[in-house]
Amino acid sequence: MAKGQIFYSENVKNSFNNYCLAEGIEEVIVICDVNTEKHCLTLFDDFRNIIVIPSGEINKDIDTYSFIIKNLIYLKANKSSLIVNLGGGVVSDIGGFAGSTYMRGIRFLNIPTTLLAMVDASIGGKTGVDFLLHKNYLGTFALPEMILIDPVFLKTLPKEELKSGIAEMIKTGVIANAELFEALNNGTEVEKLIHLTAQTKWEITERDLLDKHERQLLNFGHTIGHAFESYRLNIDQPIRHGLAIAKGMMAETRIAYALNMINENELNLIINCIAKRTEQTELSTEDIQAIAPLLKMDKKNLKEEINFSLPLGVGSGKVKVAVDLKQIQKILLNA
Amino acid sequence: MAKGQIFYSENVKNSFNNYCLAEGIEEVIVICDVNTEKHCLTLFDDFRNIIVIPSGEINKDIDTYSFIIKNLIYLKANKSSLIVNLGGGVVSDIGGFAGSTYMRGIRFLNIPTTLLAMVDASIGGKTGVDFLLHKNYLGTFALPEMILIDPVFLKTLPKEELKSGIAEMIKTGVIANAELFEALNNGTEVEKLIHLTAQTKWEITERDLLDKHERQLLNFGHTIGHAFESYRLNIDQPIRHGLAIAKGMMAETRIAYALNMINENELNLIINCIAKRTEQTELSTEDIQAIAPLLKMDKKNLKEEINFSLPLGVGSGKVKVAVDLKQIQKILLNA
Repeated sequence: MAKGQIFYSENVKNSFNNYCLAEGIEEVIVICDVNTEKHCLTLFDDFRNIIVIPSGEINKDIDTYSFIIKNLIYLKANKSSLIVNLGGGVVSDIGGFAGSTYMRGIRFLNIPTTLLAMVDASIGGKTGVDFLLHKNYLGTFALPEMILIDPVFLKTLPKEELKSGIAEMIKTGVIANAELFEALNNGTEVEKLIHLTAQTKWEITERDLLDKHERQLLNFGHTIGHAFESYRLNIDQPIRHGLAIAKGMMAETRIAYALNMINENELNLIINCIAKRTEQTELSTEDIQAIAPLLKMDKKNLKEEINFSLPLGVGSGKVKVAVDLKQIQKILLNA
Repeated sequence: MAKGQIFYSENVKNSFNNYCLAEGIEEVIVICDVNTEKHCLTLFDDFRNIIVIPSGEINKDIDTYSFIIKNLIYLKANKSSLIVNLGGGVVSDIGGFAGSTYMRGIRFLNIPTTLLAMVDASIGGKTGVDFLLHKNYLGTFALPEMILIDPVFLKTLPKEELKSGIAEMIKTGVIANAELFEALNNGTEVEKLIHLTAQTKWEITERDLLDKHERQLLNFGHTIGHAFESYRLNIDQPIRHGLAIAKGMMAETRIAYALNMINENELNLIINCIAKRTEQTELSTEDIQAIAPLLKMDKKNLKEEINFSLPLGVGSGKVKVAVDLKQIQKILLNA
């Protein structure tokens, strides 16, 4: 199968073993966090080489990266080894960065264990490490050998984590796939939703791996969402990525409305869907003021303006919409 | 001009300014070390944004990488910025790694200031950072926008540094270009030698950017050379990269002879050329014993055997020659 593709499995252990057999892989090194070590590793045969990292975005930093590299060296990982990133977005982001830079890149494969990772983070080869609270300021574009999705892991997740994943599903629907957005509103089963979202993400990614144009659509909600996520990390009240994105999407939907990119009906449809499915409220006045300095640091910005990907109706969008910080604040504070 | 290509200049300042004008580049950030800050930066117009790193391979580590990233953030580098790596191999290796991973990769350009960087390190998009004395264990394949070569910088170099560059020229001649090896032996002027070596390297690199096959030829001398370089760093007696490679090449030439890949005449021709032009002696018995454990860590190895690229006659070579550690020691100790 081509690099970066998604394999949907109903028996992750068998699928993984078959893959290793077919590819002649003998040396496997698993990277997981303390949660997936406890809840997900048990589904596999005994792995001999396991690197366990602390969980949470706060640990997606250069110290954890160094820790992984040190352990890859200790485990004698080389160019014939395969790294398996078993976990949520933090694990595939940092494990992918380690894999793509260790010895200038060895093979890695993602087995996402959170809904968010299944539909978004594990797909498309963006790896990332935060630096001094700057989200994903270090990273590479490097496709995993495969993404192996098995919904069995969803049973291990707390409800908040599921809502976090749903937020990224809504994002993909609003900005790129009207059918998916419709499915999210009519009670379609989760396996079908995962499939629809993951495929949409992969198709966009395949057309624009290096994130020059179309792929930027998937940043909807992320300009404000990332700033909010950094802010909450900053004040020691971390929020799950998807839940920050839910808040970000609500704010950015208001901006799209103010810019006449969506009508009032679409505004309500989108905001209600986000609020209902993720149980998030919109940003408070305090939040809006707190994130202003962080918006300026967003790495999507060129020059002084803030850069957005915004919906144009439901199911499509526009990238590189530059908006002045003052205007953003005016729109959000008056909403 | 296509990414990764070499531009030979006789006026580096004008060439650089013309490039920026043609490409519409406004934001330039220079990475240099304490030596090139002093001796090379003066040849340019005033740069506003300069990141000065400590010199030497010992500083090509993750701490210096973090330092560069921190300063890129401080200088508000973004996707429209251009990084200029002004220096020798250490600067282009670590500056390239920073450039290729900051925000998942921004543009960078190399202006090599040492002979070694002009003919080897700055060309071909291998970036690298050492990790716990493991040479280039972190890195990416990422082509610079351009390599701007002006021999004017050679005037700033100590003699040892020139010999270090000559070693990589000899390497390229022995393993890939008989005409170059001949030119090195008949007093051809240095500008011509630089041109011949740099072009040979770039042509090989272009055919095999990801170092899967032919490019590995350029590792001649580097299996033993890297081990020796690490060993000397380890005992606090660092040796210049090219001088370590000179010793590595002499040893690996002996291995090639023992494996009947070159005849006695070629053996003497190669060893004499290296000894004469770099003024290096062959490895001592003590050296050979000291590097054994380090040879096992070479990242070119697969499984237990040590992996070499060895000459096959003069001007061509063979990659992936696996030799047992015991056999290596026997050959070298009996030489």
